[in-house]
Amino acid sequence: MGVPSTALFTDHYELTMLQAALEAGSAERRSVFEVFTRRLPDGRRYGVVAGTGRVLDAVENFRFEPDVLHFLRERRIVDEATLQWLAGYRFGGDIWGYPEGEVYFPGSPVLRVEGTFAECVLLETVILSILNHDSAVAAAASRMSSAADGRALIEMGARRTHELAAVAAARAAYIGGFTTTSDLASGYRYGIPTVGTSAHAFTLLHDSERDAFQAQVESLGRGTTLLVDTYDVAEAVRTAVELAGPELGAVRIDSGDLLLVAHRVRQQLDELGATRTKIVVTSDLDEYAIASLRAAPVDAYGVGTQLVTGSGHPTCSMVYKLVARAESADPEAPLLPVAKKSAGGKTSLGGRKWAARRLDENGVAEAEVIGSGPVPDELVDRQLLVQLVKGGQVLTREPLDVVRERHAAALAGLPLSATQLSRGEPVLPTEYA
Amino acid sequence: MGVPSTALFTDHYELTMLQAALEAGSAERRSVFEVFTRRLPDGRRYGVVAGTGRVLDAVENFRFEPDVLHFLRERRIVDEATLQWLAGYRFGGDIWGYPEGEVYFPGSPVLRVEGTFAECVLLETVILSILNHDSAVAAAASRMSSAADGRALIEMGARRTHELAAVAAARAAYIGGFTTTSDLASGYRYGIPTVGTSAHAFTLLHDSERDAFQAQVESLGRGTTLLVDTYDVAEAVRTAVELAGPELGAVRIDSGDLLLVAHRVRQQLDELGATRTKIVVTSDLDEYAIASLRAAPVDAYGVGTQLVTGSGHPTCSMVYKLVARAESADPEAPLLPVAKKSAGGKTSLGGRKWAARRLDENGVAEAEVIGSGPVPDELVDRQLLVQLVKGGQVLTREPLDVVRERHAAALAGLPLSATQLSRGEPVLPTEYA
Repeated sequence: MGVPSTALFTDHYELTMLQAALEAGSAERRSVFEVFTRRLPDGRRYGVVAGTGRVLDAVENFRFEPDVLHFLRERRIVDEATLQWLAGYRFGGDIWGYPEGEVYFPGSPVLRVEGTFAECVLLETVILSILNHDSAVAAAASRMSSAADGRALIEMGARRTHELAAVAAARAAYIGGFTTTSDLASGYRYGIPTVGTSAHAFTLLHDSERDAFQAQVESLGRGTTLLVDTYDVAEAVRTAVELAGPELGAVRIDSGDLLLVAHRVRQQLDELGATRTKIVVTSDLDEYAIASLRAAPVDAYGVGTQLVTGSGHPTCSMVYKLVARAESADPEAPLLPVAKKSAGGKTSLGGRKWAARRLDENGVAEAEVIGSGPVPDELVDRQLLVQLVKGGQVLTREPLDVVRERHAAALAGLPLSATQLSRGEPVLPTEYA
Repeated sequence: MGVPSTALFTDHYELTMLQAALEAGSAERRSVFEVFTRRLPDGRRYGVVAGTGRVLDAVENFRFEPDVLHFLRERRIVDEATLQWLAGYRFGGDIWGYPEGEVYFPGSPVLRVEGTFAECVLLETVILSILNHDSAVAAAASRMSSAADGRALIEMGARRTHELAAVAAARAAYIGGFTTTSDLASGYRYGIPTVGTSAHAFTLLHDSERDAFQAQVESLGRGTTLLVDTYDVAEAVRTAVELAGPELGAVRIDSGDLLLVAHRVRQQLDELGATRTKIVVTSDLDEYAIASLRAAPVDAYGVGTQLVTGSGHPTCSMVYKLVARAESADPEAPLLPVAKKSAGGKTSLGGRKWAARRLDENGVAEAEVIGSGPVPDELVDRQLLVQLVKGGQVLTREPLDVVRERHAAALAGLPLSATQLSRGEPVLPTEYA
């Protein structure tokens, strides 16, 4: 959509740093960058890794094509030597990461990128864009999914976020436990099942609500979902069942006191014999509203704004930091741990790190253990990082359903308090070995 | 990037409503849809219309190409008759709107789409995606721009949002008053000036801070911006001026008490004779932090997270509502105003509307006046809606600088309290004539 390569999803300074490093002879030093977050959003118990599959696509497509090079030359962003280097750019290093769908905690090295400084530094912006966005949406989706307690969740947020962010948001929502989406682009791009109901405009287009319902049932069948709150809900439900019979698929309620209205509608549907007609509710729902409707006879929730905006936390605070680099450009030179050390507080831990999740005697996770030395024997089998890219080649592509199941399993392995909606500390402490 | 047409940025139900309306014979009824918001984000004084130019691109490119039709057929989303209709789809109606960059208030009809129900209803999702996202970012940018009071603002948020949302965010930020961006894609796509400094990784890559600064100055020139907070700020500033001389372009501070550190660094630079070397500050700034640094010797602010997430309000609550439609499919049939009327509270005002901004005797705006009848004589010249699309043809394409200047002028025409950062009511009341 107007941008020819993921290489443009890059901050200006990545290229100027590259130029300076190429000239200084430091660009080829072997380097290790890690992606992690210093904290979870306030009060959240866990984070969800999402976007890894999109990162792999972005790395594979990260190419400086002639028109991109032309732009960089014309705007004098870097010199000719750097443009020459960029023209041949292919990421040839290694990437390790938490498998997509895993949970993470403060300090978890969710992605590790290894190669020369030059080839790794360029990937910073696009990797962070993807992981920060997708993980924020997946975290909200996961909480909503716990709150929904097995009821269906429909992602309906496309209209509340950037049109392409919406596609990634639907993907992240599916990973977090959503059932379906309204967004056709995400159905096309990722195969997520799409569904739809009807808007008030459709009812208002017709001479009466009855005409509108009749048109919808005749064209889309009795299994369709009719929107019943354009005028009077009780009358709409009566008309709906009269026209579609007890085979009516569902009714949607988009306003009012949903708890109260859902009870009344359920009772009315049952009295009319439509005992299998479902109730879908929408209307600015978040995880708390979903949870508060547990006692209501609701079959599915449609969620928009709060999902695609991460329910108050539209981005994660993941950073991409150089944690180790070679002493020289010699490929055999040993790696030195490095870290910022100013007084400002934004310090980080140097060194190439492993991570493992330690279990208690009942098999429940009890700590996220991170270290840069040898992995203790008892944690070898509990390591979290897997290799995703080797020598520039993507090793695995995972179906989205595998990722979704992995998330459900990871969440089930945490202490029960993980799914509490109330504010609290991360459900696992991060320990540095 | 993986989606062939803006037609896929559409909710499933738009297509199923189309199918039902085609079958019922109501699809060709002339219709008027309006985009508006019922409220501004809590405490905000005004909204900023942004994304209109992108909406025009999206409408022009809204085509159901063979692979999209194949997807819709295979997934059985609509029937063959509807697919046939979609294959020939071209928007042939009219679009009116507030010019991009204008301010808006609750109820302002920022966009009006007129045509048959069928051709208009399909555009709902993509229009709302664009306007809700871009206007949210522009509103935050506008507040930050007022707070910066003439100092330069650099958009640096690409890594904190979806990679393509970032491109639109940089565009919206520029409209709202930002000076430059770090995002190369937005430079490529929209011609926004791009700039860059340097990251901590660049310093850590080298054997010493001195080596890093030397490499940067040698390659990028003395006018470059050196990052001075990797280790000790005072020592870094001394080294920086020693290497680059008083021609050093700028130093960047990314951590610590920015007010205090900026004062110290300014004093040190002046003592070293680098009186024209500028100071750039970054570190999770929002409009309040920017305002609190007014007394500091800061020349430019780099803003990331809070800008691209709309400073607490990552989306607007704009909706796309049918406000009038013809009695029949006859193109000459008169339009009837329509509106939802349930008890749930989400009511809206029917009828095709005009909007005008009334001025007081000093030429300062005093009310946003909205009506559906004839325009009062004294408001004829103050009308806000302009025609953007006529019979499917886009009438004007505006350079981004024109839009940016329009926003500045619109803001200058509001009462002074518009730029107060404190929470309050919309600075203009909305009056219904």
